[in-house]
Amino acid sequence: MEEKVTSFEEMKEMIAEIVEKMKKKGGIKNVYCLACGGSHACLYPMEYFLRTEAKNIAVHSITSNEFVYAMPKAVDENTLVFAMSLMGGTKETVEAAKAAKAAGATVVALCAKHEVPLVEPADYTVIYRIDIGYPVEEQNQMKILTLAVELLNQTEGYVNYDAMLDGYDKIGEICTKAIRQVKDRAIEFGRDYKDEPVLYTMASGASSKVAYMQSICMFMEMEWVHSSSIHCGEFFHGPFEVTDYETPFMIFMGEGRTRYLDERALKFLRTYAKKVIVIDAKELGLDTISDEVIEYFNPILHWAVGLEYAEGLAQAKKHPIFMRRYMYKVEY
Amino acid sequence: MEEKVTSFEEMKEMIAEIVEKMKKKGGIKNVYCLACGGSHACLYPMEYFLRTEAKNIAVHSITSNEFVYAMPKAVDENTLVFAMSLMGGTKETVEAAKAAKAAGATVVALCAKHEVPLVEPADYTVIYRIDIGYPVEEQNQMKILTLAVELLNQTEGYVNYDAMLDGYDKIGEICTKAIRQVKDRAIEFGRDYKDEPVLYTMASGASSKVAYMQSICMFMEMEWVHSSSIHCGEFFHGPFEVTDYETPFMIFMGEGRTRYLDERALKFLRTYAKKVIVIDAKELGLDTISDEVIEYFNPILHWAVGLEYAEGLAQAKKHPIFMRRYMYKVEY
Repeated sequence: MEEKVTSFEEMKEMIAEIVEKMKKKGGIKNVYCLACGGSHACLYPMEYFLRTEAKNIAVHSITSNEFVYAMPKAVDENTLVFAMSLMGGTKETVEAAKAAKAAGATVVALCAKHEVPLVEPADYTVIYRIDIGYPVEEQNQMKILTLAVELLNQTEGYVNYDAMLDGYDKIGEICTKAIRQVKDRAIEFGRDYKDEPVLYTMASGASSKVAYMQSICMFMEMEWVHSSSIHCGEFFHGPFEVTDYETPFMIFMGEGRTRYLDERALKFLRTYAKKVIVIDAKELGLDTISDEVIEYFNPILHWAVGLEYAEGLAQAKKHPIFMRRYMYKVEY
Repeated sequence: MEEKVTSFEEMKEMIAEIVEKMKKKGGIKNVYCLACGGSHACLYPMEYFLRTEAKNIAVHSITSNEFVYAMPKAVDENTLVFAMSLMGGTKETVEAAKAAKAAGATVVALCAKHEVPLVEPADYTVIYRIDIGYPVEEQNQMKILTLAVELLNQTEGYVNYDAMLDGYDKIGEICTKAIRQVKDRAIEFGRDYKDEPVLYTMASGASSKVAYMQSICMFMEMEWVHSSSIHCGEFFHGPFEVTDYETPFMIFMGEGRTRYLDERALKFLRTYAKKVIVIDAKELGLDTISDEVIEYFNPILHWAVGLEYAEGLAQAKKHPIFMRRYMYKVEY
């Protein structure tokens, strides 16, 4: 039976209850985003939003097993943890949630089902869905962004809250249109790049970890292609020396304040590279969302579109995106 | 004229003055590490130490230009910034320091000279040196670790402070011996791997960003070789699917709490890869440093040794480590 995805109203009430309960213990001092791989990247919209907008809530993101083995001393009863795992069974993340709980933290589990190990140590559970053809509102990045915004608004207050609500209403249709818009390009990308030994990805700001996800999940995990993600701001401090006419770079151009970083990197690539794949939020219509909040929606759009490119590559390579040689197949 | 490197006593006094001055404004709420590329990676010993040990000082690391264009709202008069640039002229970092200063933060510049642009917006300056043959005590990672430890000890207190002082006394000789120990291996590495199209690096814990630095500076920037750094904890959640007998992985094995993550990754590589370069802090003699603090010294040792491997590769490739095609040569 399909699980019911947690609604906006339910998340709003959940955060209200958490804020109320934690107020009695002295309030929320810090937030930890705990997960591995793709889920880790999907928590980034929360990390980036809170790191940028919150005045008194510190946010950190740590890969689950590092948290288990070297838990920060700052984790205590004033800590709120968000732990994500699609199937809810990622051992490292389950252990991380348990460790956080034992240290006194309040734990929110994010996964696709209620009857999974991750839910056990959690105080609250948020259910999401990332099936093909899903409505974007139901996927994990939207859930985590919504939770971050509620958390800020219900504690410190968030001056652009209404603009954000308006963004929630628009992002679904923007993604649907953008996916249609890139369909042919994604097929062309697969055709043109299927034999490339290395694919770099680039982004900045809220989308930094979309580039990471595209690299480690879509290219390395799904297609067994060598890859690395480069922050556009770091590009000129080392990585750009590998640029040449033979090396492909997929750049996720964002809207909002960090766009300049992307534009600077693209200008360089236009001059010194030839194989440049541009996924531009501006051209894909993100700009109907208000300027004050637009940057926080970049990763939602970029991820939806990035998946199409992964599919395009998979088809051209005749290498299905679910084919694995090690994951779930051997001991590790 | 050579600049005098800032001494331990001077840094200790500097932190005392900062703590005292900021106490009058309500204390130190957060710390931001700001830099680009290799310097950004070199700030990580501070980020990892404070993130792990501090209860009430939140620490964040942001690449300089992202900080300039999307400065966190939490930056105010209770913020302490550490901004690093070897030659003190990295534009993005100078701008970031200026922006932080304008927002009310106290700014510490770390660089190799006093007469540089980065010093201008700074309240304090720490001078370091990273010349070939430098004493390890004078290099940037040691300076930043010392500053982090002083900051914690002089605010919240640090229970392992004496063990840390003992570590400072030992790390220099450990590095000197380790460099000698790997000399031949580094030459062999160069000889065996000089024609590899891709070199992965891996690490965890305090050394995570040594892997990043080895990848973006030593391999991409200096040798124009494709590369990516993988956190050992993230390896099993995507990246490991590229593992095969042809693909080289350089793994930095650390001492201390996160060693299990490295060992798990190495066990997998020993089974499914053939080209594995192991740089092991345990075998290189880090273990004369006390268990409670040993993990914080991993990056100091790993970086010193990693440089030898970069040199080994450069010699075999006949590609001097200072050769660039874009950096300081073209407009960007």
